Amino acid sequence: MSLKLVGLDADDTLWHTESVFRLTHERFNELLAPFADAATLEAKLAETERRNIQIFGYGAKGFTLSMMETALEVSDRNVSADVLGEILAAGREMMTHPVEPLPGVHEALTALAADHRLILITKGDLFHQESKLAASGLGAFFSGVEIVSEKSADTYRDVFKRHGERAEGAVMAGNSVRSDILPALEAGCYAALIPYPLVWENEAADPPDNHPRFRELASLRELPGWLSEIV
Amino acid sequence: MSLKLVGLDADDTLWHTESVFRLTHERFNELLAPFADAATLEAKLAETERRNIQIFGYGAKGFTLSMMETALEVSDRNVSADVLGEILAAGREMMTHPVEPLPGVHEALTALAADHRLILITKGDLFHQESKLAASGLGAFFSGVEIVSEKSADTYRDVFKRHGERAEGAVMAGNSVRSDILPALEAGCYAALIPYPLVWENEAADPPDNHPRFRELASLRELPGWLSEIV
Repeated sequence: MSLKLVGLDADDTLWHTESVFRLTHERFNELLAPFADAATLEAKLAETERRNIQIFGYGAKGFTLSMMETALEVSDRNVSADVLGEILAAGREMMTHPVEPLPGVHEALTALAADHRLILITKGDLFHQESKLAASGLGAFFSGVEIVSEKSADTYRDVFKRHGERAEGAVMAGNSVRSDILPALEAGCYAALIPYPLVWENEAADPPDNHPRFRELASLRELPGWLSEIV
Repeated sequence: MSLKLVGLDADDTLWHTESVFRLTHERFNELLAPFADAATLEAKLAETERRNIQIFGYGAKGFTLSMMETALEVSDRNVSADVLGEILAAGREMMTHPVEPLPGVHEALTALAADHRLILITKGDLFHQESKLAASGLGAFFSGVEIVSEKSADTYRDVFKRHGERAEGAVMAGNSVRSDILPALEAGCYAALIPYPLVWENEAADPPDNHPRFRELASLRELPGWLSEIV
């Protein structure tokens, strides 16, 4: 059996995102230092994000709104317009940050695209994700781009079906155990974890032990090799 | 020839949106009245939105960020945290506003779905649009939901192709001449304009004169009748 479709996550799989978010967190902590210490600010911001995910979904715009909300809350509405302006500017910077493919991604996609159809499958903000793909210069490798609001087993079944394959004929590769690996395995796909040094705390989960369709890889460069083993 | 696919816009075609935006505008003008009159505020906000559309795309989250930015700008960063908090709350309310189908929409979709496959085609924020569709109770009428970042002739060609038809075998119905009518006609579709009393100024355009594949209808209720004439 040969796998026809390769699903690939985008943020922190093809390019850095979490590192950009972390820089913005640092700036946020710095700006609000008069009101609370970094640990308190991190905890409050994470709480605001969790509360807002049902309204905002994922992505940089919702994150920026959550930063504003947290700033108002921790300061008891005493934060200055200047500081709020700086937070807004930090959010904006995050949305216009240059998109650099991670090392080895270009060569891995070249190898993968020779034998498979590649589908980008990512959560987050439709507009921002499409902009990032365009800015990355990787768009031409993909036969399909699927921006989804949630990554569940049904999402993977639907996406691969839409591209003409059963989940069993597809592999999903990404950096999040919770979003890219567990639901893809549940759907019947193969799944490759490509860890990224930073994980957003809402995405943290343990990788599966000894699952026959799962492999942890050191980098996307190893994916073509694993796929040829499966064949 | 019978048209197989019916594309439908969502905001202000199936449910009110612009009226909710207008209420938020009024609240915004009220909150910032100490700094500028309503006409100046409207003009500044429209300018900020236009400037930000390349970064934020369409939708309520980007609009909320643009309101914050405009408030900081018109007040020369002298606006209070309280007022910014109220603007944030107004944006949030907009995102959680109940979604009520427009009069006649339910019966029109029932009639249309008997003879055609219906595809929702809408711009805006993926997460918020999916939430609104779920809240509207209209989800079951649709064979497909396509949230797109821009509505061009190519968008319509691609969407209808993905659903198995050429653009010539489809009709697009919506309230925006610029987004729903002109590019759909250019793609080769039929197109039905269903005017909504309010139009976002960035969407304003003149309807085409005497185009053989275009019709202006008083309400979505008239769409099934026009489609049966085309057959």
